Amino acid sequence: MPSDDRVLIDYRTSDDAGVYRLDGERALVQTVDFFTPIVDDPFVYGQIAAANAVSDVYAMGGRPLTALAIAGFPKDVEPAVLKAIFRGGAVKLREAGVALLGGHTVQDQEIKFGYAVTGEVPPGRVWSNAGARPGDELLLTKPIGTGVIATALKFGRAPAAAIDAAQASMLELNRTAADALRGLPEGTVHACTDVTGFGLIGHASEVASASGCSLEIEALAVPLLPGALDLVEGNVPGGGRTNASHFGPRVSYARGLDSRVVQLLSDPQTSGGLLVAVASAGAARAEAALREAGVPAARIGRAVPAAGPLLLVI
Amino acid sequence: MPSDDRVLIDYRTSDDAGVYRLDGERALVQTVDFFTPIVDDPFVYGQIAAANAVSDVYAMGGRPLTALAIAGFPKDVEPAVLKAIFRGGAVKLREAGVALLGGHTVQDQEIKFGYAVTGEVPPGRVWSNAGARPGDELLLTKPIGTGVIATALKFGRAPAAAIDAAQASMLELNRTAADALRGLPEGTVHACTDVTGFGLIGHASEVASASGCSLEIEALAVPLLPGALDLVEGNVPGGGRTNASHFGPRVSYARGLDSRVVQLLSDPQTSGGLLVAVASAGAARAEAALREAGVPAARIGRAVPAAGPLLLVI
Repeated sequence: MPSDDRVLIDYRTSDDAGVYRLDGERALVQTVDFFTPIVDDPFVYGQIAAANAVSDVYAMGGRPLTALAIAGFPKDVEPAVLKAIFRGGAVKLREAGVALLGGHTVQDQEIKFGYAVTGEVPPGRVWSNAGARPGDELLLTKPIGTGVIATALKFGRAPAAAIDAAQASMLELNRTAADALRGLPEGTVHACTDVTGFGLIGHASEVASASGCSLEIEALAVPLLPGALDLVEGNVPGGGRTNASHFGPRVSYARGLDSRVVQLLSDPQTSGGLLVAVASAGAARAEAALREAGVPAARIGRAVPAAGPLLLVI
Repeated sequence: MPSDDRVLIDYRTSDDAGVYRLDGERALVQTVDFFTPIVDDPFVYGQIAAANAVSDVYAMGGRPLTALAIAGFPKDVEPAVLKAIFRGGAVKLREAGVALLGGHTVQDQEIKFGYAVTGEVPPGRVWSNAGARPGDELLLTKPIGTGVIATALKFGRAPAAAIDAAQASMLELNRTAADALRGLPEGTVHACTDVTGFGLIGHASEVASASGCSLEIEALAVPLLPGALDLVEGNVPGGGRTNASHFGPRVSYARGLDSRVVQLLSDPQTSGGLLVAVASAGAARAEAALREAGVPAARIGRAVPAAGPLLLVI
């Protein structure tokens, strides 16, 4: 649709979801995501797939309303496994207040599961990637490292504590964080995205690019899942290497950084946290509001005037 | 969502799409469908996938607004093929006035393509499966036989004329038919569905079941795609056999019917037509309105008081 003025955000930007204006008060926020299992327990996998799919709506400042299930399954999959996946998804959707309206299942070589999710947002209240301004503080609402830990898990190399922490983080809806941010004075949140497949540096560089500024990230301030640092070696997933080579050229890394931390900054996340640019005057209040709501938010850097690289990791 | 009164229709009924009330004037109609190629030309395949996906919205009386693409592709697929599929889909969505907001692509063993589609409908104007009443006339807006012809095409057994007619039919949006039906006096359309994977007997028996009546279908009145009858033997797809065995027990077939026609009544359709139950007093007008709009609608039977079988094929 070349000139449809109801399309506020579509696939041509790097935002988390598309936004379509229904009328003056209401716009739809829409997103779709599905993926192969990243944990062993099908019930947990279904829950994570749902938490991950609705996250894009929260990242745009919206409230998710409805979902359509999308599933691929091999012919010989155990019915109990299927049932557990769908049940996990349903439980998490219910927690998010989302109605499951339908879905589509196809035969596939491997299991795939996820949702197309629709939410609503007032058209003037969309949190895009494009609003960060020099001086803004950057908050991250979940620790990173789910990609490395899931890879270690696949090869039987992850300690139980790391698995438990990663699963608990992936199961957490970004709703609590989004609600806390929405409760802040208007104009506090300048930009928001969720950290998923492109890793922290990928999504941060998209915010920088869309906002026409650079982001400075303090490597040591970025929260890591327990166990992630020790697992980096030998467990970097393919997506992590792709992110590092694709986004790396846009990043300037300070000398002397721990190479394991650098690799985690490219680690693809599933159901990752929100990366938020907030007005510096409101940063302390935003951080306090998140923490009061039980969200382990960390200040991980700031927006700075456009430098050569999109990201400066210090 | 056990008690969400905004859910007007969800996955627990056999309707074509879910319906979610946003407010007094507006409900969302949502559906998702994707499938493997059924024609050789990737550009045509993309168009058919789009026409098929938006059809469920028309079948509920809605107007489609937005779409999210869903795609699976082998690693080694030619980029030109991919591009042609997406371009075909985009062309058809534009024809339907639908904005493409985003999508998700995964690696797959085979090509799969389709859309999650969202439309809107006034909450009191939803055409469900459940409204047919004894005495209603049944109209079908497209001929059947796409499953048999696509199977023959796959094995190089379909004449060009049959392929061309099937493709032209699958490419046709059900919008023209839905618009013509919406233009009829209120209360004329009692029930509506589109004929897709379950075949005519599958979708007709769902209407009968949801409406608490039986449907009588005149086998010789059902329009067939040119060439379909001659191709039945040896080209019944797996889905056709599944439909026949699954829905067959609900159907009473008159003696002496052409067994090829009986098989076509179970033929799974892609981007099939609308099956509409209209008040008998408005049937002639409905048929005329459809034909004036260029839709080759046929009267194929009527609703009758609940008999033992859901369908009586005469």
